[in-house]
Amino acid sequence: MNLSEFDLIDSYFKRSTTVQNSGVALGIGDDCALLDIPEGYQLAVSTDSLVCGVHFFEDVDPYRLGYKALAVNLSDLAAMGALPKWVSLAITLPNGAMVNNNPNWLSEFTRGFFALADKFDVVLVGGDTTKGPLSITVSVKGIVPRGLALQRNKANLGDLICVSNFIGDGALGLSIKLNELAVTNPQYFVDALELTEPRVDLGILLRGLASSCIDISDGLTQDLIHILKASHCAANIAIESLPLSKTMRKEVNLGKLNNDEAVQYALTGGDDYELLFTISENNLRLLEQRIAQQTQPIPSLSVIGRTTLQQSELIAFFKEKQAVTYSTGGWDHFK
Amino acid sequence: MNLSEFDLIDSYFKRSTTVQNSGVALGIGDDCALLDIPEGYQLAVSTDSLVCGVHFFEDVDPYRLGYKALAVNLSDLAAMGALPKWVSLAITLPNGAMVNNNPNWLSEFTRGFFALADKFDVVLVGGDTTKGPLSITVSVKGIVPRGLALQRNKANLGDLICVSNFIGDGALGLSIKLNELAVTNPQYFVDALELTEPRVDLGILLRGLASSCIDISDGLTQDLIHILKASHCAANIAIESLPLSKTMRKEVNLGKLNNDEAVQYALTGGDDYELLFTISENNLRLLEQRIAQQTQPIPSLSVIGRTTLQQSELIAFFKEKQAVTYSTGGWDHFK
Repeated sequence: MNLSEFDLIDSYFKRSTTVQNSGVALGIGDDCALLDIPEGYQLAVSTDSLVCGVHFFEDVDPYRLGYKALAVNLSDLAAMGALPKWVSLAITLPNGAMVNNNPNWLSEFTRGFFALADKFDVVLVGGDTTKGPLSITVSVKGIVPRGLALQRNKANLGDLICVSNFIGDGALGLSIKLNELAVTNPQYFVDALELTEPRVDLGILLRGLASSCIDISDGLTQDLIHILKASHCAANIAIESLPLSKTMRKEVNLGKLNNDEAVQYALTGGDDYELLFTISENNLRLLEQRIAQQTQPIPSLSVIGRTTLQQSELIAFFKEKQAVTYSTGGWDHFK
Repeated sequence: MNLSEFDLIDSYFKRSTTVQNSGVALGIGDDCALLDIPEGYQLAVSTDSLVCGVHFFEDVDPYRLGYKALAVNLSDLAAMGALPKWVSLAITLPNGAMVNNNPNWLSEFTRGFFALADKFDVVLVGGDTTKGPLSITVSVKGIVPRGLALQRNKANLGDLICVSNFIGDGALGLSIKLNELAVTNPQYFVDALELTEPRVDLGILLRGLASSCIDISDGLTQDLIHILKASHCAANIAIESLPLSKTMRKEVNLGKLNNDEAVQYALTGGDDYELLFTISENNLRLLEQRIAQQTQPIPSLSVIGRTTLQQSELIAFFKEKQAVTYSTGGWDHFK
C-alpha cells in the first residue's frame, strides 16, 4: 500500500457520524479546526506522546493502542474535572498504513481510538500523518466551568487523600508483558494496563469538592508528591488502606507474589490512570451524596491517608499505625 | 547528560517572562493548561509533526528547526485569519538533550522556538518530552472573531487569485540542501526554507475580505487545488504574474537555472508558507486601503489569476495569454 496523506485522512480519520452540540464549527479538512467554547467555560488542553519501544511494544494489539493513546489523554482532562470535547491526532507510521506486517493495523488502531472517542462524544478535529518511526501524539481539549478546574496546588492541611478503584493492576500487567512475572490470571492485569478507563465522570463530580486532583500515571507516590510539592504539605499514607483488586489479592494468596510486592506495585508501579485527590471530610460526605444520585457507575473510592505539615519525608507510610518504609521511586519515561 | 522529563521541562520549557493578556489561567505544570477564550471568538487549532529524515535533516541547525517547527504551525493559523495565542510542544529526543553530538541542541532548539513565539506573544502552555527517534509535534491554538475565519470552500466565480511575497525560494533552498543545484547566492534560498515568516498580520487583515485562503506548504498548484475542489470552481493562472524573487530572477539571468525551472519551483515546489487567497476586485481595493494604514510591514501581494467555471483541467495556465502546460504535482510527505 502506498496511500498518500490525503487518502489516509479520508480513509481512516474522516467520519460520517456527527456529534450533537459538539461545538465544532469547522472540522477536519481546512488549515485549522474552529471550535466554539460555551460562555462561562475555560478550555483545558493536554498533549501526550506514545513512542514505540518506550510506551508500547511494536506487536501491541493496534485496537488497544488506539484506545489507550486517547485514554491516557482523557485521563488528564478527568484529573482537571474537564468535560472532554475534541481531539487532534498526529501519527507517524513507518510504512503506509501497515505496521508489524499487519495490513489492518491502521484501521484497527482507529477502531480502538474511535471506540473510546464515541463513548465520551469526543470529536476528532484535526491531525497529521507522517512517514517515520512509529509514534502517536494526541492533543485533547475539554471544557470546565471557569474557576472549577481541579488543580494540584490547592490541597489543604488535614485533607483526606483518596484514590479511585484499584491501583497496581496496570503495573503488574506491564511486568507480565515483560515476562518478569507469571500469575494465574494474566489477562486481567494486561487488560488493566491496555484498556484503561479514564475517570471522566468522577472528575466532573469532584468539581467544587476536591481541593486537588491528579491522575496516577507515574505511580501513586510520585503523583502524590506532585500534589504535595505544589500545595506545600506532606502526607501520611496507611498501607493497609491501599485499594488492591480482588484479583491482585488472589494472586498474593496463591503465592504468585508476596504482599509487599503487591503493595510496591500499588505505590510506585504507575499506569493506573485512577484519580488521586485530596478532599475535606465534609466535602467527602457531599461527594458520596452526589455519587449516590448518579445513574452511571462511578468507581469505588478509598481513603488512603491524610495531608500533614511538612516533615522530613514528604510521605510517611504506616501499617496498622506503625511507621514502615517503602520506596517512592516512580517511572520516568525519559530515563 | 541524563535529564529526567521533569528536569527537561524545568530547564528548557518553563519561562519566567509572562505575556500580558495571554488568557492563560493555568500554564505548564498541571495535568492540563487552562485557557480563557474571549467572548465572541472561536478557537482555531492546528497540529503538525516534523520528523527527522522526512521534514528535516539531523544536522539542521537546531535554532532554525525550533523556529520552523513553530512557524509552519503559525502559518496554519495565519491562513485562517486567526490570532495565535498558545502552543503545546511534544518532542521526542534520542539521547537526553543532545542530538547529533551537540550538547547545546535542546537549548538552541528552544531558543529558536521561543524567538518566534515571543515575536507573536504566543505562550507555551504544555507539552511532553519522550525518549525516542527525533520528532517534534506542535499544536497551536489561536482565536478568531466568530464567523470571520478564512476557509477554503468559499471562493466565488470570477474572484482574483492572489499570493503574498515570493514563491519558489524555499523549494530552491531545499534543492540546494539536497545538492541538486548550485547557485550564486545559496544562503538566501536556505534562509527562505528555514526561516519561514508566518503571515499572521496579513491573515488578520484578510478577515471579512478574502473569500478563501490557504497557506502554501505543498506547492502553489496543490494548495490552489484544495481551494478549487472545496469551492467547486477552476482557475486560470498567468505564469508571467507569478511572484519570483529578485534573487531567483538573478540566478536565472546568471544561467544557474532556466526560466521554466524557476516557474516550476514556484508552481509545485512547496515550503513557501505564503498565503494564497481569493478575493473580489472590490475587496482587493479595500484590502489595499487596510494595508496602507498599517504601521508594521505587510508583504507585497500579486494577482496571479482568476477563478473560473469548472473546466477539463482544474487549473489552466497562460503565458502572455497563450495556453501553456505545466506540471501540477505537489509534495506529499507520506510518499
